Amino acid sequence: METLSETRAFFDEGYLEYRPGLTVDCAIFGYHDGVLKLLLVKNKLLTKWCMPGGFVRKNENLDEAAARITTWRTGIENLFLKQFKTFGDIGRNNPRGAFDEEKFYELTGMKLEKDNWLLSETVSVGFYAITDIVNAQPKADYISSECAWFPVDALPGLAFDHDEMAQAALFAMRIDLYHFPIGKNLLQPKFTLKEIKLLYEVLSGKKLNPSNFPNKLIALDLISRLDEKRNIGAHRSPTYYKFNDEIYKKALTEGLVLV
Amino acid sequence: METLSETRAFFDEGYLEYRPGLTVDCAIFGYHDGVLKLLLVKNKLLTKWCMPGGFVRKNENLDEAAARITTWRTGIENLFLKQFKTFGDIGRNNPRGAFDEEKFYELTGMKLEKDNWLLSETVSVGFYAITDIVNAQPKADYISSECAWFPVDALPGLAFDHDEMAQAALFAMRIDLYHFPIGKNLLQPKFTLKEIKLLYEVLSGKKLNPSNFPNKLIALDLISRLDEKRNIGAHRSPTYYKFNDEIYKKALTEGLVLV
Repeated sequence: METLSETRAFFDEGYLEYRPGLTVDCAIFGYHDGVLKLLLVKNKLLTKWCMPGGFVRKNENLDEAAARITTWRTGIENLFLKQFKTFGDIGRNNPRGAFDEEKFYELTGMKLEKDNWLLSETVSVGFYAITDIVNAQPKADYISSECAWFPVDALPGLAFDHDEMAQAALFAMRIDLYHFPIGKNLLQPKFTLKEIKLLYEVLSGKKLNPSNFPNKLIALDLISRLDEKRNIGAHRSPTYYKFNDEIYKKALTEGLVLV
Repeated sequence: METLSETRAFFDEGYLEYRPGLTVDCAIFGYHDGVLKLLLVKNKLLTKWCMPGGFVRKNENLDEAAARITTWRTGIENLFLKQFKTFGDIGRNNPRGAFDEEKFYELTGMKLEKDNWLLSETVSVGFYAITDIVNAQPKADYISSECAWFPVDALPGLAFDHDEMAQAALFAMRIDLYHFPIGKNLLQPKFTLKEIKLLYEVLSGKKLNPSNFPNKLIALDLISRLDEKRNIGAHRSPTYYKFNDEIYKKALTEGLVLV
């Protein structure tokens, strides 16, 4: 919702276009140079930050809704997206308590009726995505003042149940890391073993055994050595590696055991 | 719903007690003596079998709904239950097409109006559970004629999107197996390494390296050797092992790397 009229139409008649009570929320992780961040949105109607999300349209599937929202917020299409958990506890989003009615009137010139479709309880399906931070262009909208990256180990307190959601996304991503080669789009097409090890250490949040880790990837044929070295001087030029596309695609859908 | 009057009340006024459009479905796996099965229900109104499930009550959380349904179907309380995926594709359960109206009238003496709350699209949150088959007492109800175990590698074609759901549950359980000690309640308190290896092979659907596998469990302190052997004669009496409760409980919530 980029304009006032779009925003008003959404509050007024959104139930015609969206499935009431059903949202997706997206934990969009960003990696760059050894730091892992999470993309958050500052909604003008809430005092706390939250993860980007939105209602699911009547004519779209859950993963389509998640793809639409992550693309809109980052400007990137076809990000690796994975459902991690659904949140449906009683009173989880408590929309009546969360909205600041005065601010809402200020922003939209509207008063929200008690039976407005947005005030019913929602179940939210959580997805996570991972991108290289330099590829993303975070985008706020009419009802959000900011959309920005925060380091995962220094998140602000989040609105609704989004603290729990962010931790669940991180936990799920860290387990998936052992089974799906989700880091491919975070590396250059040619990379060194040091670079892929740093990536996996930051994503997993722990130190990896320096010899075991890349050996396992090589043994699984997931990455292979190129006949080319990075030129950083006469000595110790590290060899380049690349992902093997076929094994990578198979692993992404079927899973494997990376550890 | 065990009686006609309960069933009629559910169809008529269930929207007062349940959250319309929101169900849980439960993949209840059963293990015994090296065979893995799935519990299925034969609904009298459907031609195919399906997984046990039901609407979420207005006053309960998602995991409470899943616990209520698994307990009702198996007679067992406090089973290990884990959310694995939510299903919300457009037209996924197509309730109008799935119901046999004549059979419905025969069973209940009712005609379902076009705007009945049960005919709206539902989103279903999938949970899986695992139990020892001998502990479960499968239970049918007024609108189901049977509730029975099927080997996971010989399932009948299932109704709605339950084929996809069953495969997704199996896939998720097999990945979780590497991170959560979910098999504890399938073994006796004292077990041999051969027994735990067989259990993990059947659950994971693949052969495990006979020396590596138990060594890893022992190295993680998840299981430990007892000073006691099974008495099966003078020679080759296998040593008993047990789970270490503290490490087990921690691993169940925090995860670990079992492979």
